[in-house]
Amino acid sequence: MKTDLKRIRVNESRFKDDFEALAKIGGTPEGGVNRTTFSDAHLAARRWFRQQIESAGLEFRMDGAGNHSAFLDCGEKNAQTLLVGSHLDSVPFGGRFDGALGVLAALEVLRVIRENEIPCRYHLEAIDFTDEEGTFFPLQGSSALVGKLTPDRLKAVLGGANALQKILDITGITIEGLLAAQRDPDSLAGYLELHIEQGMRLERDSVHIGIVSSIVGIRSYQVNFFGLADHAGTSEMKTRKDAAQGASEFILTVRKTLLSDYPDCVANVGKLSLEPGAFNIVPGTARLALEFRAAETNQLDSLEKDLIQKAREAAHHYNLEIEIEHLARYPPMPMHPAMMDTIQAAADRLALSHTTLASRAGHDAQSLAAFCPSGMIFIPSVEGASHSPREYSTWEDCRNGANVLLHTVLELAASN
Amino acid sequence: MKTDLKRIRVNESRFKDDFEALAKIGGTPEGGVNRTTFSDAHLAARRWFRQQIESAGLEFRMDGAGNHSAFLDCGEKNAQTLLVGSHLDSVPFGGRFDGALGVLAALEVLRVIRENEIPCRYHLEAIDFTDEEGTFFPLQGSSALVGKLTPDRLKAVLGGANALQKILDITGITIEGLLAAQRDPDSLAGYLELHIEQGMRLERDSVHIGIVSSIVGIRSYQVNFFGLADHAGTSEMKTRKDAAQGASEFILTVRKTLLSDYPDCVANVGKLSLEPGAFNIVPGTARLALEFRAAETNQLDSLEKDLIQKAREAAHHYNLEIEIEHLARYPPMPMHPAMMDTIQAAADRLALSHTTLASRAGHDAQSLAAFCPSGMIFIPSVEGASHSPREYSTWEDCRNGANVLLHTVLELAASN
Repeated sequence: MKTDLKRIRVNESRFKDDFEALAKIGGTPEGGVNRTTFSDAHLAARRWFRQQIESAGLEFRMDGAGNHSAFLDCGEKNAQTLLVGSHLDSVPFGGRFDGALGVLAALEVLRVIRENEIPCRYHLEAIDFTDEEGTFFPLQGSSALVGKLTPDRLKAVLGGANALQKILDITGITIEGLLAAQRDPDSLAGYLELHIEQGMRLERDSVHIGIVSSIVGIRSYQVNFFGLADHAGTSEMKTRKDAAQGASEFILTVRKTLLSDYPDCVANVGKLSLEPGAFNIVPGTARLALEFRAAETNQLDSLEKDLIQKAREAAHHYNLEIEIEHLARYPPMPMHPAMMDTIQAAADRLALSHTTLASRAGHDAQSLAAFCPSGMIFIPSVEGASHSPREYSTWEDCRNGANVLLHTVLELAASN
Repeated sequence: MKTDLKRIRVNESRFKDDFEALAKIGGTPEGGVNRTTFSDAHLAARRWFRQQIESAGLEFRMDGAGNHSAFLDCGEKNAQTLLVGSHLDSVPFGGRFDGALGVLAALEVLRVIRENEIPCRYHLEAIDFTDEEGTFFPLQGSSALVGKLTPDRLKAVLGGANALQKILDITGITIEGLLAAQRDPDSLAGYLELHIEQGMRLERDSVHIGIVSSIVGIRSYQVNFFGLADHAGTSEMKTRKDAAQGASEFILTVRKTLLSDYPDCVANVGKLSLEPGAFNIVPGTARLALEFRAAETNQLDSLEKDLIQKAREAAHHYNLEIEIEHLARYPPMPMHPAMMDTIQAAADRLALSHTTLASRAGHDAQSLAAFCPSGMIFIPSVEGASHSPREYSTWEDCRNGANVLLHTVLELAASN
């Protein structure tokens, strides 16, 4: 890379103005945004993004899945495209950083490269993926792009295929378009995404940049304990088959097991119901929802074995029957080692501290990782807050992240 | 008591025929009965009871609360009445013994005394109380009889006062009648009730007869743990404020505390909800329903202190806030010592083994105990099953219980 390229930076005031303008679209009084997919606020944010693209002299593109892009042609007809992006949709009443930061940084990278007339070996594309958060279907736009959306999966969409069809009709997207949005993997040079960490690891260790090593795999289960519903007055404590006891022991055991044996993994019991559910009836049934996440498949396998064993033990301790239903299985998606190296070199060049870490949340990069060399850059989240108006990253960290993204793109794409 | 009175027994075949005929009214394929208050089956059972009363040459009476009675006048105008009974209503899809046994035994006692022309110092009344199980209001008929039903309490009736009014209109009972059903305590010599234990203590110790020492007091609470709802992927296990952890520790602790420190008491957590309630969100709130029962007020006080302390400790262990709402408070109702002695003497006379024990379920006797000398006789429940078609007591135990009831009445009322 030429010396003058090393000195190049994002236009900080323009990037900040963009960030603040976008945060007002669907902005909430608490300081977050409410931009669920295809809501008025989300559609307004996309219109605003298109205006920014066109006023920057970049080409606006939209594919059959409704993914919106800024496109910068490198002038070579058969060149591959380096994709950079994230998403503009939010969870209901979420924060202003999740997704939006990555889209705006990608746009800014393209603007800086165009303004500086830096010759590139790849076309550059700054993309806003449709419905990352899953108002209808998680990772919808990125799944469509990599050809993972099948008619069967679309039928399983939240709210039913009819609800999705209605929305798609309104927005001009069609099922056929979604299915036809798949690209040729050979057309892509890679994918890069800047995102907030949504955890506390970078902040705790005072590190500027997280180089994502993989996006964790997730497995989820329905675990049901069956005892005997009984009179809470006349049945003896000692001989009850109280399903709540087994469930409670298991909930405590899950946490203890993760803390002692799986310090890099997480697990959660987020739902629990006791039946029949009355003050004066000993619970005969306890139904709970378990999920856990790990960066490695062998960790997932080991967690599955250990936790199912512990659930069986908890049932046994209280003379209960148990039924375990396996639900979702998302494999861990490793980021590409060359992409990780390039991100690290960019951070070093900018004198920013860095560490590698697994992403414990899902991202569009997990769709792309199986399709083309992919990399993710994290910046610190204050107090790890996310999917909440409390979500916050300092402006310095946002700027640093965008500059790391810029220099990663330059390292990969600049041809001079 | 004269020697020939000591030899008197209930008419076993008649009593058994009655029991089997009644069990068919609202009988379920599983062998239980479904006779919720004022259901067709319940009203049919009451018509059948009236026919038995009248065909036995006893006087049928009904008060303003719809309590049905067989009445045997002792011939003395100003004599007190010895009340004997239970209830013909059942919980939804309950058993054939709960309540029905006590009403039929009371009727049989009156028939035997009338047939044997045994002179009595008290009028005898075999009563079927309205809605003991609380389809509309627990202990409705017995509460009305002792003047505990107020217009305010009636408004709190399950389903609202309007729903009750509708039913009462159909059955000819009025709110005014309910309120006017109160008797003069001086008019009653006492109250006796035969019932199945609904627990396993008599069966476990191979004892024929339980002499009830008191009906337990009950206190109930809403216990809410508040933490922080968080992303189940990105939030660290160590720093989460997971409300399910506090609730689970508390549920296990309640059981351990009762087993180790309160062997004669019972407690239950019968309801629990986690919020917001999703696989991938750490529960920010856990709401649970706690109740406990004890025969002594000082035990209730001590349990309240201990369990609330342990709930606070559980919250503290997981960095949670806690909110405890005190709900119902039913004081323990001791049975009358003289009644207990008389029941014991009757069991001794019949060479039946006996023990004293507290009733952990509610009964009409708890309404009467504050009003007139009251006593309860328990017989063993096989496997303690109750409020279920599995409810069962051997015929020998039913017969024994009825004979103890007969000899208790004879001891109290026979004047020769």
